[in-house]
Amino acid sequence: MNSSLRPFFEPTGIAIIGASTKPNKLSYGILENLVKGGFQGGIYPVNPKGGEILGVPVYAHVKDVPDPVDLAIIVLPVEMTLTTLQECADRGIRNAVIITSGFKEVGGAGAALENQVLSFAREHGMRIIGPNCVGVMNMKTGMNATFIKGMPEKGPIAFISQSGAIFGGVVDLIIESKVGFSRFASMGNEMDVSEAEMIEYFGEDPEVGVIAVYLEGAQNGPRFMEAARKISKKKPIVLLKAGKSNAGAQAVSSHTGSLAGEYTAYQAVFEQTGVIEVQTLDALINTAWALGVQPLPAGNNVAIATNAGGAAALLADELAKNGYTLARISPEIQAELRTRLNPSAQVANPVDMLGQAEPQDYAWSLANLIKEPAVDVLVPILVPQALVDTLGVAKAWVEAAQQTEKTMLTCLVGERSTREANAFLNASGVPVFRFPEQIGTVLGGMRKFARFRERPPFTPVKVEDIDAETAKVVLHQALGKVALGEFETRQLLEAYGIANVPGGLAKEEAEAIQIAEQIGYPVVIKIAAEEILHKSEAGGIRLNLRNAEELRVAYQEMLSHITQQFPEAQVIGVMVEKMAPKGQEVIVGMRRDATFGPMLMFGMGGVLVEQIKDISFKVAPISEEDIDDMLASTIAGKLLAGYRGAAKGDIAAVKDVIARLSQLALDFPEIAEVEINPLIVYPEGQGALALDSRAILKH
Amino acid sequence: MNSSLRPFFEPTGIAIIGASTKPNKLSYGILENLVKGGFQGGIYPVNPKGGEILGVPVYAHVKDVPDPVDLAIIVLPVEMTLTTLQECADRGIRNAVIITSGFKEVGGAGAALENQVLSFAREHGMRIIGPNCVGVMNMKTGMNATFIKGMPEKGPIAFISQSGAIFGGVVDLIIESKVGFSRFASMGNEMDVSEAEMIEYFGEDPEVGVIAVYLEGAQNGPRFMEAARKISKKKPIVLLKAGKSNAGAQAVSSHTGSLAGEYTAYQAVFEQTGVIEVQTLDALINTAWALGVQPLPAGNNVAIATNAGGAAALLADELAKNGYTLARISPEIQAELRTRLNPSAQVANPVDMLGQAEPQDYAWSLANLIKEPAVDVLVPILVPQALVDTLGVAKAWVEAAQQTEKTMLTCLVGERSTREANAFLNASGVPVFRFPEQIGTVLGGMRKFARFRERPPFTPVKVEDIDAETAKVVLHQALGKVALGEFETRQLLEAYGIANVPGGLAKEEAEAIQIAEQIGYPVVIKIAAEEILHKSEAGGIRLNLRNAEELRVAYQEMLSHITQQFPEAQVIGVMVEKMAPKGQEVIVGMRRDATFGPMLMFGMGGVLVEQIKDISFKVAPISEEDIDDMLASTIAGKLLAGYRGAAKGDIAAVKDVIARLSQLALDFPEIAEVEINPLIVYPEGQGALALDSRAILKH
Repeated sequence: MNSSLRPFFEPTGIAIIGASTKPNKLSYGILENLVKGGFQGGIYPVNPKGGEILGVPVYAHVKDVPDPVDLAIIVLPVEMTLTTLQECADRGIRNAVIITSGFKEVGGAGAALENQVLSFAREHGMRIIGPNCVGVMNMKTGMNATFIKGMPEKGPIAFISQSGAIFGGVVDLIIESKVGFSRFASMGNEMDVSEAEMIEYFGEDPEVGVIAVYLEGAQNGPRFMEAARKISKKKPIVLLKAGKSNAGAQAVSSHTGSLAGEYTAYQAVFEQTGVIEVQTLDALINTAWALGVQPLPAGNNVAIATNAGGAAALLADELAKNGYTLARISPEIQAELRTRLNPSAQVANPVDMLGQAEPQDYAWSLANLIKEPAVDVLVPILVPQALVDTLGVAKAWVEAAQQTEKTMLTCLVGERSTREANAFLNASGVPVFRFPEQIGTVLGGMRKFARFRERPPFTPVKVEDIDAETAKVVLHQALGKVALGEFETRQLLEAYGIANVPGGLAKEEAEAIQIAEQIGYPVVIKIAAEEILHKSEAGGIRLNLRNAEELRVAYQEMLSHITQQFPEAQVIGVMVEKMAPKGQEVIVGMRRDATFGPMLMFGMGGVLVEQIKDISFKVAPISEEDIDDMLASTIAGKLLAGYRGAAKGDIAAVKDVIARLSQLALDFPEIAEVEINPLIVYPEGQGALALDSRAILKH
Repeated sequence: MNSSLRPFFEPTGIAIIGASTKPNKLSYGILENLVKGGFQGGIYPVNPKGGEILGVPVYAHVKDVPDPVDLAIIVLPVEMTLTTLQECADRGIRNAVIITSGFKEVGGAGAALENQVLSFAREHGMRIIGPNCVGVMNMKTGMNATFIKGMPEKGPIAFISQSGAIFGGVVDLIIESKVGFSRFASMGNEMDVSEAEMIEYFGEDPEVGVIAVYLEGAQNGPRFMEAARKISKKKPIVLLKAGKSNAGAQAVSSHTGSLAGEYTAYQAVFEQTGVIEVQTLDALINTAWALGVQPLPAGNNVAIATNAGGAAALLADELAKNGYTLARISPEIQAELRTRLNPSAQVANPVDMLGQAEPQDYAWSLANLIKEPAVDVLVPILVPQALVDTLGVAKAWVEAAQQTEKTMLTCLVGERSTREANAFLNASGVPVFRFPEQIGTVLGGMRKFARFRERPPFTPVKVEDIDAETAKVVLHQALGKVALGEFETRQLLEAYGIANVPGGLAKEEAEAIQIAEQIGYPVVIKIAAEEILHKSEAGGIRLNLRNAEELRVAYQEMLSHITQQFPEAQVIGVMVEKMAPKGQEVIVGMRRDATFGPMLMFGMGGVLVEQIKDISFKVAPISEEDIDDMLASTIAGKLLAGYRGAAKGDIAAVKDVIARLSQLALDFPEIAEVEINPLIVYPEGQGALALDSRAILKH
């Protein structure tokens, strides 16, 4: 691994710049952690006062620090940052963690200084983590370059946190239960190194088995997608997103000054890139831990061995929610189980050995369940009992886990009696949870990862026969406008190969009749005026006009109605369109997300769109699989596939429209939104027609 | 409280029948718990061997036990149960807890014995908890009549558990953190005393502030509903249901032999009776605890005071999910906050005092947030820091809580550093949670309770002009049939005042034409044959017949098609019905749940029913509010209320149909299912018509 980030985790020597002799200072805490953690490289406190701290000699200036040194931890007043970085550069130190706060997160002068610091770093080829962060840890070398007390056990999880406090909380939560970590990175303001770059780095780091992320907002959306998509193919990325709701986003923004972004876009990105999103901090730790130490489930059949039927029932409910079922245990294995268990025990799944089950009962049950080919996942559960040896049971579980390639997750329902056994299990690589319900979520996450790995490599859909030149002209002519009317949007769509219902824009009555005669009656007319967005509600649509006479009357009535009701509206003309035959109405659209760019949408069209909320979102560029996902996850898509004997819709045509709209959005960043509602889909082989559409430009 | 259950919790003396001298026996554990727990009443071990256990004299026979004694704890081999109960009856003991297992849960002889024991108890006016249970506790008197080690702190929660192991697990989980309980009842097989009766009892018990229930299945559905509905008006009932999925139900059933029942019915019942359903054991404890010790939120505005912005963001997201928002803090209070906090602190909500926040910072923030009238709920959060005194912070929180009537819930994100502070907070009646996300669910539960209390008292809807006699005749004539055809279902509906589209059953062509001429063209014809349930798919419907000629052709074609395609079908005739004008299509139906009885359904009708799953369920009898809920919680109901300028539907007519169907179901238990799909609803004042309907009878 030849990465500019490597010295953050595998430095040869560390300068702690701003080291204090006072034990109540953060810098003292960092030095103490480095010294006590067992870090084998150089440890060089820097302070103009010199002397000694914790038995380590203090250097007056960065330039005095001896070799080897390749990482600086800076804990100084904010105004000293630039000169200190200059000193580091002079001394040949190219990696710095800036713990100091008072930068972007306080706005104004702080934000300006952060920009200066970044320019300096870029100019001098330096890499910086922070500012406003807690530091980094490498569990494998005992390097605790943070002021957090204690280091977790060695293990597979690398944790990337956009909140230093969450980082500290996680250490406090897991340190006694021996959940194992390899790296910790507190990202702070992400001035230089972003969470995406860190994901890429840990993706290549052989000592990292799984990446856990606490994310408030992606620094750079496309970069995040690229990193996540690449790394998810080899290592699981488990992620907790904060700022999903408006209130949460407000909290995030007041916290670090970063933007939480639109959650819908994040959800789409997580699904598209294989990121395993969890909903709680608890689930983040649990899921990462299981993925880090246990094999992936070979299938979705779970066997439970328990001393408490109720706990098994709670787990079974959660398994069902997460796509798992209880494995069917063969009569032979059931008979075998019966030979040594309590005669009142249940030997069908869940295997309930009753309250007083002993270590040997678990050993017997697990040994037999391991033999059962129908079982993919084993979950032993114990509710501690006064007369049962909890640690002994835990030992039986670990022995069983060591004899199988099947996934094993365990549950000790308790706290007072379970600490020692918990630590033993986790230290042995057998994840243990406090509540049976937690295991459902964890298995759900494992399943998602396994499925993403089976997907073909990402290939963006390609579309042909595109007339980008025409689209460019249409957009150029619309320069300065907020919205495109239907007529202009039709031109854009046509240029990108999306078929509109036949029709044209008439500036006067005679022209309307001419168009109608070209396309054939019956026709519909729609008012064309930028100010009137909801034409139907404004009385700006007349349907089913069967001949020139009806068209003439409707034309006059509509124009006089509109000029009376909306005197300020600038009427461009009237769209005359063929009455399209009925078909299935869907919506296809795009809106541009501030973080990730063009976000495609597909779902049920027509008047119920807002009530039914049957919309799937994907961020462009999209693959064939992404489009298939959009169809598979919506009612609209299921109806197209031919529901309850109804005719199949032209799915290929719908997919083509989505792909073409995606390309249009990628090609023209000035388009903020496009909505085709409805797109009428005809039976298989008969295509789809945009019946109404509009676009909004960036302003 | 003059209840036959009282001696279970407030006995004057307890006989432990089957007391053993061996410390590895359950009965020894029970005796030890009674002696050590500080129970002040009589404690009388009974064993033919006599002697002394733990310094307490042992009585050879139940009849030898001195006064006072009014409760027996029976821990004997299953076959001695009946003779022992006889001895108790003779001694005048009317309450017994049977710990022994081997009854209904093992089936066969065990189930038969359970029936015998129940008969005996009923005959002798005895009340029994169990068998196959763990016992009971009364924290207020120190009575631990279980074999679980240790007793929780004194507090408001009464816990009813249908699983003894879950009971033990909860004690293990909470005993160190000082969550306070008043009563524990392990229900076992519920041979005599049911969970519903226990809810009623705790509802009247002045030492119980909140009832927590772990439920696998209700013994008696209507009784459960009645108890829950009554008690929820005064005390919160928080409930965790196991066996919601098929897998969970299978686990429940193999556990205690009881039926988990259909979860949809349970969900409806919980909503209708104010039961606060939670999804995890963790949430059960947390929600009950908060409801037990904190005032209900006066509104939905929350203020967060934190040393960790990330933790506040996670909480904010969960608040949004549960109907809460971040309170707006006035500029005056913000200015006041600023006077003493870190200059970099955020003083808008969340108030973020940054990592190193000290007890006095929390004290200052909370004192000011308490003053802010816009704040209903206070949530201080601390992520422990190396240099911050966690217990000191907890003390500041408790002091603040003591100075306000506002709801306060707190969060210490950690485990290693938080134990002492957790215990201190809980012991002071200030609930503390490990993860910020947990607080959202808890507040959601508090809100549900507050809302249910505001509902008017339950009054079943009344319907008039019912012709039960005709319905009885129709059902009598259908005796032995599985399903009623549309013709018969129409008669049932009509008898109960539900209007059908005009029409009649024709046995031959001429009769069909006669009916059509009476009701007027256009008409629709439908095949009437018990064997053909899905008439449309079978080609058994012809629409829009405009005159006698069209009717004649369609009649012949349809009959010949049906006799060819379904030679086994017994064609009764052809329904001739008026083509109903278009309106909004809804579904109204009923199906009978095995546990709770008639369950009404309402939702979106037509072909999309199964895809959109827009159905609300309520168990009869139902109130006006229940029906309003059905409409409010469905898209169909929202569309009826006039969505996006569409005309309002005749809501009164729909509500009337639901009420009438409810009455029909209550009056005739032999009806298993009724489905009106679609019911066509016309604009306000113009009624609703059943367009197609069918009924299924109990078999």
